[in-house]
Amino acid sequence: MKKLFFLALICFTVFNLKAQTTDSLMLRKIFSEAMLHGQSYKNLEHLCKQIGGRLSGSPQAYNAVEFTNMLMKEMGADSVFKQPCFVPHWVRGTQQIGKIYRKGLQPLDVNVCALGGSDPTPENGLKAPIVEILSWKQLDSLGKVGKIKGKIVFYNRPMDNADPSAGSGYGHAVDQRWAGAFRAAKYGAVGVVVRSVTHSYDAFPHTGAMHYEDTIQHIPAMAIATMDADILHYALSGNYEVEFFMEMDCKNLPEELSANVVGEIKGTEFPDEIITVGGHLDSWDLSEGAHDDGTGVMQSIEVLRIIKALRIKPKRTIRAVAFMNEENGGRGGKAYADEAKRSNKKFIAAFESDGGGFTPEGFSIGGKNKIAVDKIYSWNELFVPYGFAEWNKGGNGGADVGHLKDLNTCLIELDVDGQRYFDYHHSPNDKFENVNKRELEMGGAAMAMLIWLISEYGAE
Amino acid sequence: MKKLFFLALICFTVFNLKAQTTDSLMLRKIFSEAMLHGQSYKNLEHLCKQIGGRLSGSPQAYNAVEFTNMLMKEMGADSVFKQPCFVPHWVRGTQQIGKIYRKGLQPLDVNVCALGGSDPTPENGLKAPIVEILSWKQLDSLGKVGKIKGKIVFYNRPMDNADPSAGSGYGHAVDQRWAGAFRAAKYGAVGVVVRSVTHSYDAFPHTGAMHYEDTIQHIPAMAIATMDADILHYALSGNYEVEFFMEMDCKNLPEELSANVVGEIKGTEFPDEIITVGGHLDSWDLSEGAHDDGTGVMQSIEVLRIIKALRIKPKRTIRAVAFMNEENGGRGGKAYADEAKRSNKKFIAAFESDGGGFTPEGFSIGGKNKIAVDKIYSWNELFVPYGFAEWNKGGNGGADVGHLKDLNTCLIELDVDGQRYFDYHHSPNDKFENVNKRELEMGGAAMAMLIWLISEYGAE
Repeated sequence: MKKLFFLALICFTVFNLKAQTTDSLMLRKIFSEAMLHGQSYKNLEHLCKQIGGRLSGSPQAYNAVEFTNMLMKEMGADSVFKQPCFVPHWVRGTQQIGKIYRKGLQPLDVNVCALGGSDPTPENGLKAPIVEILSWKQLDSLGKVGKIKGKIVFYNRPMDNADPSAGSGYGHAVDQRWAGAFRAAKYGAVGVVVRSVTHSYDAFPHTGAMHYEDTIQHIPAMAIATMDADILHYALSGNYEVEFFMEMDCKNLPEELSANVVGEIKGTEFPDEIITVGGHLDSWDLSEGAHDDGTGVMQSIEVLRIIKALRIKPKRTIRAVAFMNEENGGRGGKAYADEAKRSNKKFIAAFESDGGGFTPEGFSIGGKNKIAVDKIYSWNELFVPYGFAEWNKGGNGGADVGHLKDLNTCLIELDVDGQRYFDYHHSPNDKFENVNKRELEMGGAAMAMLIWLISEYGAE
Repeated sequence: MKKLFFLALICFTVFNLKAQTTDSLMLRKIFSEAMLHGQSYKNLEHLCKQIGGRLSGSPQAYNAVEFTNMLMKEMGADSVFKQPCFVPHWVRGTQQIGKIYRKGLQPLDVNVCALGGSDPTPENGLKAPIVEILSWKQLDSLGKVGKIKGKIVFYNRPMDNADPSAGSGYGHAVDQRWAGAFRAAKYGAVGVVVRSVTHSYDAFPHTGAMHYEDTIQHIPAMAIATMDADILHYALSGNYEVEFFMEMDCKNLPEELSANVVGEIKGTEFPDEIITVGGHLDSWDLSEGAHDDGTGVMQSIEVLRIIKALRIKPKRTIRAVAFMNEENGGRGGKAYADEAKRSNKKFIAAFESDGGGFTPEGFSIGGKNKIAVDKIYSWNELFVPYGFAEWNKGGNGGADVGHLKDLNTCLIELDVDGQRYFDYHHSPNDKFENVNKRELEMGGAAMAMLIWLISEYGAE
């Protein structure tokens, strides 16, 4: 009995070693193909430079859908289709003015932009005393004694540079942008100005989504460049009255029909087991949407290209998805998950790359299916030679694929060295020139490698 | 007895926990000071923009020494001194011309630069048939049958993009630059043109050091931009004779006196135990020497600033060193080690940052003193919250501090995410604009943190 056990153990070990070696060789092939013949960089250049910023509902978003559709066909996907969804349609307009007024002095023009989703100001702008707020507690205490009423609220809590995690620093500051308007309006504020949520000390206002509550007055909301936020702060530290003037003609229009774009390579043995890989195609209008998230889309399409170039016939179906409307609605992610729920297919794993096209560090592997998480995690060692083996268990994959969580899908996020991500994020600095070809290609390679393993061995 | 053991264990554990907590708090303070009040970025800007490229022996190198000297005093170092050393003095001159000649066609001007240390061409240049070489084996076999004699050798083996390690990719290509001239001259070649050693496909020739053997004819050596290397390759693939013209008036002048700059904070308990932290102050003349290695120098000076700003009285002496002449001689590193050997002090640990001012990943901890390596490595866990906890045992610290290896010094290299390093390296792209403030400051923080631990607990 003991002998049999050892024999079994030896067989198992030999089999495993052989599998490991064959797998290693295939992973090396995938990596080399990605690094030597990558096309994501040139495709990203087209998206950024020929199409540019592409907010949901815009003509540029339409063009991006058509370009992506064509690109996926070019990559040799077995089928390419659009998945329609209605999206919010907000337009920035042409007026974005902010001025600091101090009695007896000339007004100071500052760099501002409308926050996504904001209502406009009255036609000729609005001028009101402005009050600086650094915490919700401070807002509440001033609000309760009537000191917010009739005023513009200036949220000036900066991103914490001393937070080692860029993402966590962002999370602790972006609440001002998202919730600032309705929370100030509750106390009778007439407008809000929000310090740009960025590590960068620069002249660009960084835009992004804001949010209204239906039952609370909708007041206009703008972002101010960090350099000008400091000017406003200093103006307010003086012993004189400061007023702020804001004017914007942005507006919310009726919803538009748009679409995700999906390109698929059919699995040979388990075609109904789907591995999804995606990024979001929409971007803020002020940027080229390079790191956020043209890189994720182009890396996902690159996965298809690599599979085809190496003539791999994957056992399970691989789908690259360009999600629409991550930035201001998440309708594409929902539409994809809704269709997945209606289908009788199994969505075994879903990858998202939306942290920028930087050097990959590893993956966060989460979702309800703990068996799948453990199985995929067990391949970690194969990634050590490439430098992207810092894997974690947990997380929701990302804003788009996260909608699949009720389908028992393993949700996988590409983790990258994103320390400079928020310097660019939602501003004109998020442009093609700030993407590095090698780093971008390594991210696509990392995903293609893990996707191939799942396509070969399944997720359970 | 057993009771006593358990009591001792508990005491030990409590003590350790307390120490861990106190240490964690101090590391957090150091990190925050670095990220909130960092000055390395602005100091680097001065070095890059006001002084610029600073090859050993140049007036710029002299200015850089004076600026660094002043800066270390400003940071409040207890003493600042220069450590003199003689350095090679090579000057680029004003002529750097490369032309491809094909019979009956017009000459093609290509982007070239002299390699550091090269002799000039004859005064009006030299023109000769050119032969492309992709391996040493190919050179040897052609050389042995007389096919190299009288020719210009074009080394065109590219950096391997499919090598996941940028450093290893560099290592496998840079031999052409370093040894190309004397190995070709052995077979009677009259000059060499070397494909720029970079991942980048660009218009810049990337310079760097080359080397002659005394007993072999010295022939001129230049680098060619990767984009033009491909043009030359295509020209050579045709069925016609190709000649190459090269002209350079660079030259080797007599050695100059230069210096390392050392700034020191004296240890309160063990002043004769020295912890060194440095980068190199010299840089190639074609670049601003930003990532290579202004960042390392400014991070090292920042360590002093942080210690002073937090009013830490380190138990052991901390020395920031701006090494001279790493690029083409290593004289500063040698001078530092020579003086260390002559002193009766203990050089317990030495840090080097020369991989670029990118996001730190961790440290390579090497040297002969295995006890020190193990002790320092045991603190790894304290660095996990900061994201730079990928530590390795081994390595030589770097080209400058590596000279301390016979002194039983623990040699520590700051490891960074350097995937884009060789895109900039030794070319005009190595400029201040390509350094990210947050990433730079994180590197200084990482070193200051580990240096503080060693100053507190020693290396043995």
